[in-house]
Amino acid sequence: MKQVIVARADVGMGEGKLAAQVAHASLTAYEHATEQAKREWKQGGQKKVVVKGSSERELHELQEAAKAQGLPTGLVRDAGHTQLEPGTVTALAIGPAGDDAVDRITADLPLY
Amino acid sequence: MKQVIVARADVGMGEGKLAAQVAHASLTAYEHATEQAKREWKQGGQKKVVVKGSSERELHELQEAAKAQGLPTGLVRDAGHTQLEPGTVTALAIGPAGDDAVDRITADLPLY
Repeated sequence: MKQVIVARADVGMGEGKLAAQVAHASLTAYEHATEQAKREWKQGGQKKVVVKGSSERELHELQEAAKAQGLPTGLVRDAGHTQLEPGTVTALAIGPAGDDAVDRITADLPLY
Repeated sequence: MKQVIVARADVGMGEGKLAAQVAHASLTAYEHATEQAKREWKQGGQKKVVVKGSSERELHELQEAAKAQGLPTGLVRDAGHTQLEPGTVTALAIGPAGDDAVDRITADLPLY
């Protein structure tokens, strides 16, 4: 079980901002997971991997692909109080789900 | 309502690693919150702020202070598969809780 969070590397987030957006996406996708998936993922140490996305369009496409496979997702739009324009899409979390299911969608993305 | 995540700036985590540790701490503290606190925080946009800690000892002391106030916390030790020594304490999340209650403990820490 794992969760992969795709964060946009093209919008110039600072480190702390990036971390907050990733955490937001992570929790949102987690809340959409089944109770069994939540439990199994936590028992396995809640493995998370952060990878780089390069556009808003890419994140939307990845989310559609994940939803088509029945995987939980969480897409974050920043409120824009700091650093970014309001409504900027910043991060997409996929999972927790089986490693293979998540990898089919995200395996080509570079580590952040 | 907010959650503050104190991440160690003294252990040399890369950006993606930092984000994953912050997300881990965030979810752990969230799971320790009351249902009412979870709901109120999410309705308010699940505000998160990432700040810098400078030692393992500091994170432990902040956790004790938060617990003494009845606030939910989540402390992360890295499994050490990458970048860090196994067992390294990396991040502490405090909240979700009222802004004032969290600020009493974390207001002096610099933004990450």
